Amino acid sequence: MAKPKAKSLPIKARRDLPPFDRAEFEKRAERARAKMTEAKLDGMLITTEHNVEYLSGFTTQFAWNTPTRPWYFVLPREGKPFGVIPEIGITNWQATSWVPDLLTWPSPRPENEGLDLLQKVIGGVKSKFGRFGVELGPESRLGMPVADMLRLRDMIRPFELVDCFHVTRALRLVKSPAEIERIRRMCQIACDSFDNMGALLRPGDTERDLVRKFQSDMLLRGADKTPYTSIGSGAGGYDSIIMGPTNRKFRKGDIFLIDTGGRYAGYFCDFDRNYAVARKPSDDARRIHELLYKATDAGIKAARPGSDAADVFDAQAKVLTDAGIVLGNVGRFGHGLGKVLTEPPSNMPGDSTLLEVGTVLTIEPSAMYGDGKILVHEENIVVTETGGKLLTRRCPREIPVLDF
Amino acid sequence: MAKPKAKSLPIKARRDLPPFDRAEFEKRAERARAKMTEAKLDGMLITTEHNVEYLSGFTTQFAWNTPTRPWYFVLPREGKPFGVIPEIGITNWQATSWVPDLLTWPSPRPENEGLDLLQKVIGGVKSKFGRFGVELGPESRLGMPVADMLRLRDMIRPFELVDCFHVTRALRLVKSPAEIERIRRMCQIACDSFDNMGALLRPGDTERDLVRKFQSDMLLRGADKTPYTSIGSGAGGYDSIIMGPTNRKFRKGDIFLIDTGGRYAGYFCDFDRNYAVARKPSDDARRIHELLYKATDAGIKAARPGSDAADVFDAQAKVLTDAGIVLGNVGRFGHGLGKVLTEPPSNMPGDSTLLEVGTVLTIEPSAMYGDGKILVHEENIVVTETGGKLLTRRCPREIPVLDF
Repeated sequence: MAKPKAKSLPIKARRDLPPFDRAEFEKRAERARAKMTEAKLDGMLITTEHNVEYLSGFTTQFAWNTPTRPWYFVLPREGKPFGVIPEIGITNWQATSWVPDLLTWPSPRPENEGLDLLQKVIGGVKSKFGRFGVELGPESRLGMPVADMLRLRDMIRPFELVDCFHVTRALRLVKSPAEIERIRRMCQIACDSFDNMGALLRPGDTERDLVRKFQSDMLLRGADKTPYTSIGSGAGGYDSIIMGPTNRKFRKGDIFLIDTGGRYAGYFCDFDRNYAVARKPSDDARRIHELLYKATDAGIKAARPGSDAADVFDAQAKVLTDAGIVLGNVGRFGHGLGKVLTEPPSNMPGDSTLLEVGTVLTIEPSAMYGDGKILVHEENIVVTETGGKLLTRRCPREIPVLDF
Repeated sequence: MAKPKAKSLPIKARRDLPPFDRAEFEKRAERARAKMTEAKLDGMLITTEHNVEYLSGFTTQFAWNTPTRPWYFVLPREGKPFGVIPEIGITNWQATSWVPDLLTWPSPRPENEGLDLLQKVIGGVKSKFGRFGVELGPESRLGMPVADMLRLRDMIRPFELVDCFHVTRALRLVKSPAEIERIRRMCQIACDSFDNMGALLRPGDTERDLVRKFQSDMLLRGADKTPYTSIGSGAGGYDSIIMGPTNRKFRKGDIFLIDTGGRYAGYFCDFDRNYAVARKPSDDARRIHELLYKATDAGIKAARPGSDAADVFDAQAKVLTDAGIVLGNVGRFGHGLGKVLTEPPSNMPGDSTLLEVGTVLTIEPSAMYGDGKILVHEENIVVTETGGKLLTRRCPREIPVLDF
C-alpha cells in the first residue's frame, strides 16, 4: 500500500481523570429527590446503563452488554438507596458505587431475576404518593424484560408503577462541571483523530478500513469506547449521514463524512467532519459547506440560557432558508448530549425545552443539494451565561482536501 | 516509556466478507414463519438490533446507539414483511435490507413515533390465532419505549400482544454456515490480538491503557467494534472477571485476565485469556489453571448434538469438584453466542436446551481459590456431528509470563 503524504499527528499523553467524588453523587441524589417530589414519586426503579451509572456510580461494561441478567438501582424519595444486582457483580459494585446497600441473587435464574428482592426493597419505601417510577416514557428503553416489569407491577401494589423517564431527563439536562470536563475531553480526543485523517486514509481503503483506523486512533488518544462511527462517501458527495461503513473503496473525487460518538469515562462526544479525496469539491458542495458553517455559528450564538431548543433550530434554519436551501431530512438540527449519544432536547420546531447554564448540545445543521445529496456540520457546545461555548474545536471553514 | 521486549505480531490482511446473500434471509424468514405457526403467532413486531438485523438484514449503528427514534420490523406469518422506520433511515434500509416494503415517518415526533403506521401494517395482517408477538420474555430488552408499546397494544385490538422472544431465541440457536464463518473470523482476530499481548503491555500502563491498546489492536486486525473488554488484575491474581478497566497500574507479579466481546459483521466472539506479569505464577494459580484447562476440554467434548446445556456444565464441573475446587460465582459455565454477546442457553444445572448442529457456545469454567480470587477460562465452539469444534485457538496450557 502507498504511504499517505500527511504526517501522523503525535499522540498527546493525557492522564485519565479520577472517578467522580462522593459529593458529585450526593448532589445528584439530592436533585433527583427534589424532582421526585415535584413529580409525586415515592421512588424510582432504575434499570438502564446511563441512569444507573449517573445515580449510583456503578460502572460496568458487563451489565449492559449481556441481556441475560438485569441490574437494578432503587432510589427512594426518602430513605436509603439500594443496588439490587446479580451476585457476580458484588466486587464491581463495591469498587465503583457510592451506595453501600446491596442485595444480590444468584443469576441467571429466569424464573425470578431479583423480583422478590425488588418487592422487598420497594415494599419498605415510605408511601406518600403511592407512585413508583420506572423508565417508560419517550426516548426511554427499559433495562429489564417487559414481562418481568409487568409481573413486578402486580407484586408492589398498592404502589402504582408510572413513568419516571421525564424526571431523569430533566435531571441530566444540566451537566456539572465534572461532567462537562469529561465531554470536553472526549471532544478533544475526537478532534485530534479528525485532524489525523490525512495520515489515516490510504489508497485501497474501504469505508470499513478507514473507520477501523479512525476508531483505533481515538482509542490510542484516550477514548474508552467507540460505539458510533458512521460514514458516508461518494463521488462528489454522500447521500446518507447515518450509514456504513460499507465495503466501498475510496476514489479520487469523493467527498466523505465521518460522524462519531466516542465515549470517555461514561460521556459521549457526537460530531462529524467532512473531507474531500484528492480533488477540490464542486462549487455547489463548497457553497453548501459555507452556508452550513454560518448556520452552525448562528446555532451556537442562539444557545443561550432562557432560549429554547426550537430557537436553536430557528437560528440555524434561517441561514439556510434565506439562501433558498432545502433543509436536511434529519428531522432536527442537533440535540442534547451526555451519557447517551442523543439526549433530549431536540433542536426542532415545537421543542420548548428551556436551555440552562450547563446544558450540553450538538449544533447540527444539514442541507440537501444536487442529486439527492446531503451535507451536514456538527459541533458540541455547552450553554454558559454568555451563550454557547465550544467543546469541540471549530471545523475547518472549507472542506479539507486529503492527499490520496 | 520503555519498549516492550516482545515483537509485535504482524497484521494479516483479511478481506472483508461480502454481506449475506438473499437466500440466507429467505431461509431465516421461512424458519421464523414455521416457528410462529408452532407458537400460534400471526406475526412478530421486532424492535431490537439483533433481531431486526437477523430477520430484515437492516444494518446500522445509528438506530441502536440513539434511543430518540424507535425502528420496527414487522414479519407476518403470512404476507409481506414491512420495515417501519424514521425517514432518516431510508437510504440505509434500501442499501442493506432484503425487504422492499417500507413505511416511514418524520422522526423525532414523540407524540406518535410510528404507532399509526404500525397500527395500519398490523391491522392488515391475516389473523388466524389473534396473537401478535413482541419481545417481552426472559433475556429480552424491548427496543421501543414501554409506554408506546402499551399504547400500541390497545391500538391493534383484537390482536393480543404476547411474547415472541422465545421464538427468535429458538430461531437463532442454530447458526448457518455463513454465520459461523463470521463468528470464527472474530474469534481468530481476537486470538491474534491476545497473542500480541506481550507487545502491547508496557511498564507504566494502567488497565485502561492496556484495554485501549488491545481494542485498537483488534480493530486494526479487522474487528468492526469492541463493545466489551473487561479486565481483572492484581498481585498474584484477580477477584472479578467482569470489571474494569480501572486506573490501576500493572506491577511485576500481577496476574491479569482480559475477557473480550469483539464484533465482526454483526457477530461476536466472547472469550478470555490469562497472563502473568514478569513473574511465574504461584503453584496455586498454576494448579487451578491446569484444572480449568481440563474442565474446558471436558466441556468441549460434552457439547454434542442431543446433549443439553446442563450436560455441558456437568462435564466441566465434575473436573473441578473431583479435585475439591470451589466453583466460580458466575452462575454458569458458558452460554450461547452469536449476534449478542450472551445468548441462550446457559450451561448450568436446569437448562435443558438441546444442543443442535450449528449451536455456538462459550465453554467457560471458573474456580475460586486463595483469598477471594477467581480464575476463569473461555473458548468458543460450534456443535458439530462429532462434538464441539473450536472457533478460537486453544489457550496456552500454562499462563504465559509477559516481559515487563
